[in-house]
Amino acid sequence: MKAVNVGLLGIGNVGGGAYQILGMNAEKIEKAVGAKVNVTKILARDKNKKREGICPEMITDDPDEIINDPEIDIVVEVLGGVEPAATFMLSAMKAGKHVVTANKAAVAARYDELMKTAKENNVEFRFEASVGGAIPVLNAITTVLKGNEITEIMGIVNGTTNYILTKMTDLGLPYEDVLKEAQELGFAEADPTADVEGHDVANKLCILMALAFDKFVAPEDIPTKGISQITAADIEEAKAAGEKIKLIAHAKLEDGNLTYSVAPKRLPNTHPLAGVSNEFNAIYVTGNAAGELMFYGRGAGPLPTGSAVVGDIMEIAKLVK
Amino acid sequence: MKAVNVGLLGIGNVGGGAYQILGMNAEKIEKAVGAKVNVTKILARDKNKKREGICPEMITDDPDEIINDPEIDIVVEVLGGVEPAATFMLSAMKAGKHVVTANKAAVAARYDELMKTAKENNVEFRFEASVGGAIPVLNAITTVLKGNEITEIMGIVNGTTNYILTKMTDLGLPYEDVLKEAQELGFAEADPTADVEGHDVANKLCILMALAFDKFVAPEDIPTKGISQITAADIEEAKAAGEKIKLIAHAKLEDGNLTYSVAPKRLPNTHPLAGVSNEFNAIYVTGNAAGELMFYGRGAGPLPTGSAVVGDIMEIAKLVK
Repeated sequence: MKAVNVGLLGIGNVGGGAYQILGMNAEKIEKAVGAKVNVTKILARDKNKKREGICPEMITDDPDEIINDPEIDIVVEVLGGVEPAATFMLSAMKAGKHVVTANKAAVAARYDELMKTAKENNVEFRFEASVGGAIPVLNAITTVLKGNEITEIMGIVNGTTNYILTKMTDLGLPYEDVLKEAQELGFAEADPTADVEGHDVANKLCILMALAFDKFVAPEDIPTKGISQITAADIEEAKAAGEKIKLIAHAKLEDGNLTYSVAPKRLPNTHPLAGVSNEFNAIYVTGNAAGELMFYGRGAGPLPTGSAVVGDIMEIAKLVK
Repeated sequence: MKAVNVGLLGIGNVGGGAYQILGMNAEKIEKAVGAKVNVTKILARDKNKKREGICPEMITDDPDEIINDPEIDIVVEVLGGVEPAATFMLSAMKAGKHVVTANKAAVAARYDELMKTAKENNVEFRFEASVGGAIPVLNAITTVLKGNEITEIMGIVNGTTNYILTKMTDLGLPYEDVLKEAQELGFAEADPTADVEGHDVANKLCILMALAFDKFVAPEDIPTKGISQITAADIEEAKAAGEKIKLIAHAKLEDGNLTYSVAPKRLPNTHPLAGVSNEFNAIYVTGNAAGELMFYGRGAGPLPTGSAVVGDIMEIAKLVK
């Protein structure tokens, strides 16, 4: 039985999570795939830093040692950011490697080129973890739901902003106070712009639309409004009307015309998305046959995001073993 | 390009829904599969009944004409009930046909035999529609989540009982009144026993456990309690405590020990399953990597259930085209 070899580009939160899962669930994974899945090389900036449970000989600071290693079947890009991540992925594809990534920014920025290069080189390219962390929504809309015409997608796909809006709602606190607390707890970054102004959500909506509607809209062409202008009074007004404010990635197909936006929206408390609280994510999908579906789960964190990366690795490993 | 031919055993609610979807979404399905998917024969009790949109020459009252048709690749069983459905599926597998079914009773009653026969004959056997209608939860737990150790499953997987409990909660009405209304609206059957006493849920939990924990427990060995003893006072008591009563299919793995039951449970209003109302279904799955996930959607109806059947047909068609 051939083993399937994986090279990791990056060993931060997501890479570390995926590595941990491949170890702790190795037996289940081998049984499901029908072959061992081994991480054989890892790219890291600092070769000499000690990393618990990781053999130092596996670490390299030269991406080419992974991209051009004839023993590696699958390259997993978990560096984040558009460059050099996108270039590494394209090079790996050209070297005949299948590619898995968790990187929404790179996938959204270079979608066409990445898809085209994967196709030209006859390699698999999967990016489940790029939208909704652990939630297997991309797999669903690209496989078993492909027989549906998707007519609408509404997503809560940013944990930081959902956490802030939930705390503002539950505790009646102003935006600035909750943001500060979220930063202290590590739920928001020191520079929270990409999250709170909706740019991260726009990247994810771009990816969802490309897969669900077969239409690429660049993130910068999606009308995008974040939550930084939401006041405690807005929240109170919604509450009084039996509604919750959520930052929604929205796309709707009507008469062949696709409309889309990222913006805070008031949803009735009875809407399934209104119950999605704190750092959780959910994607509400309507199909012309299935009707309304919702996929809910953890949108971030090493193990949840790693779970999606490992799911992608396994789907590819089944094909190449 | 080879077409993939499908024979339908049954053309009731679910079969009719699947047939309709294969027609209305034919273009999307052909593009996704890479081949046309054609229904070529349909088993029906009454050959001469007029059915809108269905050519009478396709109808047969002899199952062997489908099971032994060398032109048919996939047999779809949507008759319901254990027999003759199970025998038809086994015969179809032995004749080299891939099998798709929506039939939870037959899958739960004959699980081992069906799985073994499919394996021996090297055919695919899929039954997404048997649990949770349109919700693609079986596909998720058997593919991309297989790298997780599933530690717990909680499911609202019966629309009739969830409708009854929702109306009892929202309107403060007694069980008998709501059941009667549900029967008048067609949400409950004339003999509601299988639904309200939890037997239908036990079939579905049996299937979920077999796939998630690789452990078959016969439905009759699952401790099962329905909702017929739930009183308006029980509902009020839960409400006062900030909780909702839901009929829950529950399985939990702890220290290698699997416990399971079907029973009404009080869930805090903040639990994601507490917000699943009316006839909707949801399956809440915890994995050791992904954490908590929830899959929500329509558990019944011709098009939602047909959507899951078509998803299964497509996954098989991609392999055999």
